[in-house]
Amino acid sequence: MKGFAMLGIGKVGWIEKDAPACGPLDALVKPLAVSPCTSDIHTVWEGAIGDRHDMILGHEAVGEVVEVGSLVKDFKPGDKVIVPAITPDWGALESQAGYSMHSGGMLAGWKFSNFKDGVFGELFHVNEADANLALLPDGLDMAAAVMLSDMVPTGFHGVELADVQFGDDVCVIGIGPVGLMAVAGAALRGASHLFAVGSRPNCAALAREYGATDIINYREGDIVQQILDKTHGKGVDKVVIAGGTAEDTFVQAITMLKPGGRIGNVNYLGSGDYVRIPRVEWGCGMGHKIIAGGLMPGGRRRMEKLASLMSTGRLDPGKMLTHRFQGFEHMEEALMLMKDKPRDLIKPVVII
Amino acid sequence: MKGFAMLGIGKVGWIEKDAPACGPLDALVKPLAVSPCTSDIHTVWEGAIGDRHDMILGHEAVGEVVEVGSLVKDFKPGDKVIVPAITPDWGALESQAGYSMHSGGMLAGWKFSNFKDGVFGELFHVNEADANLALLPDGLDMAAAVMLSDMVPTGFHGVELADVQFGDDVCVIGIGPVGLMAVAGAALRGASHLFAVGSRPNCAALAREYGATDIINYREGDIVQQILDKTHGKGVDKVVIAGGTAEDTFVQAITMLKPGGRIGNVNYLGSGDYVRIPRVEWGCGMGHKIIAGGLMPGGRRRMEKLASLMSTGRLDPGKMLTHRFQGFEHMEEALMLMKDKPRDLIKPVVII
Amino acid sequence: MKGFAMLGIGKVGWIEKDAPACGPLDALVKPLAVSPCTSDIHTVWEGAIGDRHDMILGHEAVGEVVEVGSLVKDFKPGDKVIVPAITPDWGALESQAGYSMHSGGMLAGWKFSNFKDGVFGELFHVNEADANLALLPDGLDMAAAVMLSDMVPTGFHGVELADVQFGDDVCVIGIGPVGLMAVAGAALRGASHLFAVGSRPNCAALAREYGATDIINYREGDIVQQILDKTHGKGVDKVVIAGGTAEDTFVQAITMLKPGGRIGNVNYLGSGDYVRIPRVEWGCGMGHKIIAGGLMPGGRRRMEKLASLMSTGRLDPGKMLTHRFQGFEHMEEALMLMKDKPRDLIKPVVII
Amino acid sequence: MKGFAMLGIGKVGWIEKDAPACGPLDALVKPLAVSPCTSDIHTVWEGAIGDRHDMILGHEAVGEVVEVGSLVKDFKPGDKVIVPAITPDWGALESQAGYSMHSGGMLAGWKFSNFKDGVFGELFHVNEADANLALLPDGLDMAAAVMLSDMVPTGFHGVELADVQFGDDVCVIGIGPVGLMAVAGAALRGASHLFAVGSRPNCAALAREYGATDIINYREGDIVQQILDKTHGKGVDKVVIAGGTAEDTFVQAITMLKPGGRIGNVNYLGSGDYVRIPRVEWGCGMGHKIIAGGLMPGGRRRMEKLASLMSTGRLDPGKMLTHRFQGFEHMEEALMLMKDKPRDLIKPVVII
Repeated sequence: MKGFAMLGIGKVGWIEKDAPACGPLDALVKPLAVSPCTSDIHTVWEGAIGDRHDMILGHEAVGEVVEVGSLVKDFKPGDKVIVPAITPDWGALESQAGYSMHSGGMLAGWKFSNFKDGVFGELFHVNEADANLALLPDGLDMAAAVMLSDMVPTGFHGVELADVQFGDDVCVIGIGPVGLMAVAGAALRGASHLFAVGSRPNCAALAREYGATDIINYREGDIVQQILDKTHGKGVDKVVIAGGTAEDTFVQAITMLKPGGRIGNVNYLGSGDYVRIPRVEWGCGMGHKIIAGGLMPGGRRRMEKLASLMSTGRLDPGKMLTHRFQGFEHMEEALMLMKDKPRDLIKPVVII
Repeated sequence: MKGFAMLGIGKVGWIEKDAPACGPLDALVKPLAVSPCTSDIHTVWEGAIGDRHDMILGHEAVGEVVEVGSLVKDFKPGDKVIVPAITPDWGALESQAGYSMHSGGMLAGWKFSNFKDGVFGELFHVNEADANLALLPDGLDMAAAVMLSDMVPTGFHGVELADVQFGDDVCVIGIGPVGLMAVAGAALRGASHLFAVGSRPNCAALAREYGATDIINYREGDIVQQILDKTHGKGVDKVVIAGGTAEDTFVQAITMLKPGGRIGNVNYLGSGDYVRIPRVEWGCGMGHKIIAGGLMPGGRRRMEKLASLMSTGRLDPGKMLTHRFQGFEHMEEALMLMKDKPRDLIKPVVII
Repeated sequence: MKGFAMLGIGKVGWIEKDAPACGPLDALVKPLAVSPCTSDIHTVWEGAIGDRHDMILGHEAVGEVVEVGSLVKDFKPGDKVIVPAITPDWGALESQAGYSMHSGGMLAGWKFSNFKDGVFGELFHVNEADANLALLPDGLDMAAAVMLSDMVPTGFHGVELADVQFGDDVCVIGIGPVGLMAVAGAALRGASHLFAVGSRPNCAALAREYGATDIINYREGDIVQQILDKTHGKGVDKVVIAGGTAEDTFVQAITMLKPGGRIGNVNYLGSGDYVRIPRVEWGCGMGHKIIAGGLMPGGRRRMEKLASLMSTGRLDPGKMLTHRFQGFEHMEEALMLMKDKPRDLIKPVVII
Repeated sequence: MKGFAMLGIGKVGWIEKDAPACGPLDALVKPLAVSPCTSDIHTVWEGAIGDRHDMILGHEAVGEVVEVGSLVKDFKPGDKVIVPAITPDWGALESQAGYSMHSGGMLAGWKFSNFKDGVFGELFHVNEADANLALLPDGLDMAAAVMLSDMVPTGFHGVELADVQFGDDVCVIGIGPVGLMAVAGAALRGASHLFAVGSRPNCAALAREYGATDIINYREGDIVQQILDKTHGKGVDKVVIAGGTAEDTFVQAITMLKPGGRIGNVNYLGSGDYVRIPRVEWGCGMGHKIIAGGLMPGGRRRMEKLASLMSTGRLDPGKMLTHRFQGFEHMEEALMLMKDKPRDLIKPVVII
């Protein structure tokens, strides 16, 4: 079978591979719609997860089941399914502890285009199919539904980690696709003032549509100072980090946060030796400014829950799809958009 | 001063009283807009809190500060303020434990028209003014803001007690004003399917506007069965109880609830010896269907948080105001509406 | 193979059966030490879970692995293992939601001597062996370790459901083996005053040893009044229910509980149509007295965590073993002890 | 009146001052037993909170009420009381949010020897006496009870922040008095393996007595490696930080922590610009290793809860008192012990 792959650090291309084997709990799925992710870019061009050779890329997909293992009960060939980026081993000790995304080791619930081939192939393998696939609800736009694989659950998890409550003032740092979903999620969980930090005009406009009350643009001054000004010096109750750097972003986040506040980080920190927490602003370790960061929860239940938000009209992640391609052959083009980030891009999708 | 009072069980009327005294931490406030509540009806005509003589009624108000005690720092005469129905003693042990509504004893944070005169007088007394009043934000409709005293925080607390999460299927039982605010709150906290149980057409229409996806009307069959049918036999993740009886409503709620679900009750249960929990449907005590019920949190912070949801356009409780009166003299008329519940009534307000 | 079984309601005896089949994820285990449980008695003589024919009884065991399926990685024949009473399907939606004991339906994580043959056979079947077995740590007394299957996790879960915090006053109702473990668990989680309700002298003595500060005996007066007297009328912060009835015990528990308190029920309520909650004492639905009840969490991680409490000397459940039998043939004798409850019995164990 | 004071950075001595005034909610208390704290040392010799002139030191005391304000109801002259180091303004917005230690601003619930004179004077002032004092229970050793002001609640709060659960493997970094109380608290909340990091022999011996299962001494190798070795490479579930530096200690803590784990910091970080979090070991921001740090909760309820642990024999902080002085005149001597830290010192107390 054919797949669009990382050939080595800095190199991508089409390769031929044997189709994956299907174990008794597994499914083989062919993609119907996929989307490249910034982490594909990090993987290939920054070597973020180390070197990989001839590994098929991609972890955001809606697909059709082609084959299921003998112990799979709830899915059959022909079913249209949402595929989460994170597909845990549900019996692992970490899963039993409530952290299925770390099943088998930290971050090890992330398998596609990390420990095994991703979804940019003619077929891909899904472990524990009953527990890791969700039926695509009738009537849901397939392209929009691809956003359920990663963008929606990651952005929303930032909001959960920050523990947004009714009437909270919230800052979301970063308004790429994950940040935009964090904005939508914060609004959907009861934030009142919702400060979205970013400078790209199309993202800013969409952030407002998703519920941001204020756009904070670093070009208009220090972002912390802008937020302190807008909150009468008090700062915000919660911060979601969906962009920035290990060195500087937590410094900003801690400084703009009230004592008793929480940071929810869902930004993959790809470089730097240390995340820096400013000592005095963190209350010399005593300020109850809690710092949480975590990989999105995956699996079937999460997909079903988030899909139901789309079905009931609470959320439309499809607004982020600025570029739609028809045909598998556009895979590279779509990926290169994520690499080059033209000004009009938010998120591309490839319908196959 | 004049006040509209409960004269005894079953009797109301205007009385004359001395103005209340203002202690060092207190404020005296004159009402600008008030609203009668179903609990005023329970208090007078059902003797729900026992007999009371010449007690001024009312606990929902926006007002103007007239006098403050010597230790009050944040308010001064002339300030327009939102007054919560619940005004805790913040230093009490229960408050220190996080349950300020029970400061000094179960439910004892509820003082207006319970342990002391309420807000339907020319002046009323507010304890710990700095901690229990909130400035009315500029531009907020005063009549709509009266809903912040009780209807909004009570309905929203039901949602908090039920612990609604992203994508949850939620049932709200009862769509009077508190139930409607529970519907709005559940939608605002990320519910997907949102079943609102009620039969009055105007309330049903407003429930849909606030986010209900389905109206469940008992006239169209058993409500539990209707909900099981709509959820493929699974039931809902969470239930908010905002109406019904001790005998029957929890039986319905437990039966429609998934294992691992939660009930948030904010319905004042005025009669019956026992709340009944159906043994088998509760998993013989083992089903992890958690039952929580509680009085709304009051105080300044809560009022500020909820007011900010109005200021930022997330919530408009003013839609519930079906009857607006101009002038203190309409107090009795407004109260009688709550007693007689004409078909077009949701909630009245009196602007003074 | 031979097994000690429920033949029908009210009847037990030895039967012959084929050995169970071992699927790819499963293990077959032979028991080394087992214990009968009060729920075996309910099952047989009260028909608590309905009629069953020729079903092998028992769900508390330490055993030795005899065979494992092809996908099992962490266990091999010869391994000595602790077997939890609850063996969930870890991929089920309920497990993904954090309620593995309800995987596949309410209470359906409970399989032994419920949906399939139990552990009182020469061999028994364990689903998802990697996720549901735990190695018996070296040096742990096998007989004491049998208490990890059900008594320890059930009693401790009551303490978790009641959410005991440092310095809480706690009441544990019932001091059979589960209640005793709730006493030990409450002490181990930071309770200060710890009221244990029961009347049997040997249980009372052991409750004190496990950390009870006061024994409350119904023969010495109303238990609620005794507790109110000992708490200066305040009541307790938390209640764990490990005995009593649906009709009366929650009435007592709610009455002795402070507002803001929690009830953790781990008593299987075998009869009565309704659990009764006293309306007024429950604050008319507004008292923040949260009622939680649930089946113990099972699975490997839980077993390992609790076993480590024994290994480190924090907990010795072996003190409950008043009757030790040597030989499988004593199974009926041991079971009958649980049925007849002689005065000197707390818990029997059979070493095979 | 006389008091032992910080005269300026690096200088201490006896001073004469007017007795403090007693407002309507306040109390004046004379100390009966006091203890100097490491933070007194930081304050004076490191200028940790900035310069202060003629500020009476000390925030750990048991005392006797001498005068109460007109609104104080629960205390009267002659009452023997425990005085918490943190005395919040209970009506403040931060207190209403559950963070009373930050009432009025981050850390601002800490008043003694920070914003006002401390407890090393002939008299000291307590704000909101009803909410901030607790009666000394009969029979409690006064010297041991002084540990309830700060050492016990701070150590125990570390355990709460780390959210220790039944059977958790826990590491406590630092075994000075706060760390020792964290060890005691972790054992009392259900830790199994309990690694205490420190090198002083007397502290190590007492850590074992309070429940540590292993002492980790940096002189015997890298502490992280030692803990990984003892946990088969898995690391611990929770870490409490009660010593170390901003630069290095969090690096160690994150590295030894499992994904899904939590750090509870109660070490006042007195120097360094940044707390350093190691990026890769923190899962590139995605590892669900939550970092919490906070000032102890103060106030009356907390004191009563913790005192009840002493009354019921669960906790004996008196074991830490290695040096007892009789007479106010030994104040300087006791303080200098904390500064010089002789090998046999854990904690001194001065009985007045």
